[in-house]
Amino acid sequence: MAQDVNPPRGMRDFLPYEKAKRERLLSIIRAQYAARGFEEIETPVVEDSTRLHSGLGGDNEKLAFGILKRGLDSDDVTRAAASGDLTALTDLGLRFDLTVPLARFYATNRAKLPGVFKSIQIAPVWRAERPQKGRYRQFVQCDIDIIGEAGILAEVELITATAATLTALGLAGCRIRINHRAILKHLIASWKIASKQSDRALITIDKEDKIGVDGVVAELLALELLEPELADQARADLAELDDDGWNLTGENAPAWLDPDAYAQLLEIRDAVKAAAPDVPLIFSHNLVRGMGYYTGAIFEIQHPEFSSSLGGGGRYDGMIGRFAGTDAPAAGFSIGFERIVDLLPDDETSALDAVVLLHDRDVPPATLIALQTALVGEGKRVRLEKRTKNVKALLARAAESGYGSVANVSAQTSSVGDLEFRPLA
Amino acid sequence: MAQDVNPPRGMRDFLPYEKAKRERLLSIIRAQYAARGFEEIETPVVEDSTRLHSGLGGDNEKLAFGILKRGLDSDDVTRAAASGDLTALTDLGLRFDLTVPLARFYATNRAKLPGVFKSIQIAPVWRAERPQKGRYRQFVQCDIDIIGEAGILAEVELITATAATLTALGLAGCRIRINHRAILKHLIASWKIASKQSDRALITIDKEDKIGVDGVVAELLALELLEPELADQARADLAELDDDGWNLTGENAPAWLDPDAYAQLLEIRDAVKAAAPDVPLIFSHNLVRGMGYYTGAIFEIQHPEFSSSLGGGGRYDGMIGRFAGTDAPAAGFSIGFERIVDLLPDDETSALDAVVLLHDRDVPPATLIALQTALVGEGKRVRLEKRTKNVKALLARAAESGYGSVANVSAQTSSVGDLEFRPLA
Repeated sequence: MAQDVNPPRGMRDFLPYEKAKRERLLSIIRAQYAARGFEEIETPVVEDSTRLHSGLGGDNEKLAFGILKRGLDSDDVTRAAASGDLTALTDLGLRFDLTVPLARFYATNRAKLPGVFKSIQIAPVWRAERPQKGRYRQFVQCDIDIIGEAGILAEVELITATAATLTALGLAGCRIRINHRAILKHLIASWKIASKQSDRALITIDKEDKIGVDGVVAELLALELLEPELADQARADLAELDDDGWNLTGENAPAWLDPDAYAQLLEIRDAVKAAAPDVPLIFSHNLVRGMGYYTGAIFEIQHPEFSSSLGGGGRYDGMIGRFAGTDAPAAGFSIGFERIVDLLPDDETSALDAVVLLHDRDVPPATLIALQTALVGEGKRVRLEKRTKNVKALLARAAESGYGSVANVSAQTSSVGDLEFRPLA
Repeated sequence: MAQDVNPPRGMRDFLPYEKAKRERLLSIIRAQYAARGFEEIETPVVEDSTRLHSGLGGDNEKLAFGILKRGLDSDDVTRAAASGDLTALTDLGLRFDLTVPLARFYATNRAKLPGVFKSIQIAPVWRAERPQKGRYRQFVQCDIDIIGEAGILAEVELITATAATLTALGLAGCRIRINHRAILKHLIASWKIASKQSDRALITIDKEDKIGVDGVVAELLALELLEPELADQARADLAELDDDGWNLTGENAPAWLDPDAYAQLLEIRDAVKAAAPDVPLIFSHNLVRGMGYYTGAIFEIQHPEFSSSLGGGGRYDGMIGRFAGTDAPAAGFSIGFERIVDLLPDDETSALDAVVLLHDRDVPPATLIALQTALVGEGKRVRLEKRTKNVKALLARAAESGYGSVANVSAQTSSVGDLEFRPLA
């Protein structure tokens, strides 16, 4: 009955050393967020289809895995096919992000939550994308969100917590880019692009990383969003900023810059700087962030080894309250856990208090368990391994799993005092 | 746009205090298992439908949520309906247990695993059951399994690890019942029930908790499995055993008892006793365990506050290797995490090193974040709370979330030295 035995397409098994690394990194992330007053919640992995397809999820809605309704018969299915509406076949779907579930959770539990609610969500999401390197159909997202705080304290807390987490993870070299939707709007308006065209223009500006400033301007011209006589101005406006972008005040302020929004970002920068000195905050006036729901400051983690971002977020007032029928200010920051796992080295593998008891076949189980119990009582991690022909391979594998020393157990061994530990290579 | 905003039927949100309790209990369970050499793995939440419906899952297979194939059109659906085979609509399904995924994982990764593999799986599973009190459509299972060990050391390690975990969780009063499939077979054979009828007879014996010994015998008679002249003998044989059931040796050995299997259980008992003295191991010759795949010792956790079990397991040689096309000895033990969460009290709520900074509206974010950062650097957990009209409610909620003290922050506060902490009620 040997068969093709891969996990489902685009999804992964995690071997013990991989799982241990993931859990260790997640516990660092959890601890950093929790230390700053965020609280973890959990929602079911599925949500009602109507919520998943309510428009909050943008393009990701198309990638949702749908769950077949239970108890359908052939007639039900035939009717659905005849109506042309195959959505009648599903009532639930796997979540594609943690924002739609947060909005639903907030609506369900609002009465039990504090007025300003700071949530942690660390959980898998699913997207039926074409699998490719570094892109999976099941992957973990780590989101923090602050609901109910309209002031910039929310942005400051989110950025500080994220920066501290990146530092605690040992991810050197990260920078956080920040921009503001109002600055983007002002920039586009200064090119005389109509505001109803601004979403389309933003999609083009978002490609600057790939196609460069000239490419962006060419595309805006091709789309007839930009008038040709403003092309040079647009090229100049989009040019990279000096240093960290924070010197655009007073007479340095360019015409395209929305002064109020920039003042807000400066205030965020000042507050964050003292708290998270290792992660520079950079003003990037060409940062867009894909999702249309952002309404204020937006941010993104940049790492020198990745062309795409290691995470991002921003303010998205008015969205999280939609299922609740209220208008709740909200902002969030999500870190790209899977990329971080790939970037960071595997765990160190040898711990001297993790020991292997290598036993002969004739040692009674009672002896082995008594020895194990005594050593566990001393705080050790203890793996029992029966001697095999290839002891070397056995011990090499134990060392890979984090075990640091080994002792032989024979039928004559009677207590922990009889054990002689030697380090594993 | 206010709507019905419940989580999907039979599934639950976890508020911060619930999530914190769950994660705390899970970390105790993980630590106990890991200390005894078990290693955690993870598999995707979905598996191919063909594997979920391969017969390893027993009745649970019927409860699997199916995932609709992507990219189906009306013609595909119509064809499936016409063929009468609606399984053509799904290619994946949510797992209903962690055993089928373990068998698939073992087949996929066998070459990278040690000869004796001791796994931990702590993860949600899904069953489309009718929701009822204490029974959910998404719930967490905690399984440990040992693959590749044919001897009783596997049973001894599983029971010891489980008993130690129950003790570490603070679950007083648990007992572990143990029996052996060979003992059940021998018992049934002693009543002259044909071996091909033994599965059916076991289903009846499994009901003894509910219908009593008389009920069992009556049902065996009604099914014509038992000859009437053997009814008295069966009633006598099924009677409850004295004490802990371990005195059935020598001249105390009843005729229905398989002596070899009983000797094996005695050996397991002796090994476990020294290691886990707080959790008695009881011999129960009427313990069946539902799943048909068990082949040797079977066990079940009993708690005085629950009529059903808190978990169980046993040896199931020959099953785990089915996807791999090999014959791998295996045994496992699963604890009923959701019931344990319900049984244990909620977490203690006040930690003095978890502090609230209650700030006036005019305090600059930079001041707040600098204070928070300094306190986090001292190892504290720090929540920023803006003063509201109802401060009392605000602080009560913080206390519920585990915060133990509070200090006021005004526009004049400049450093941690200015803060005066007072305990939260």
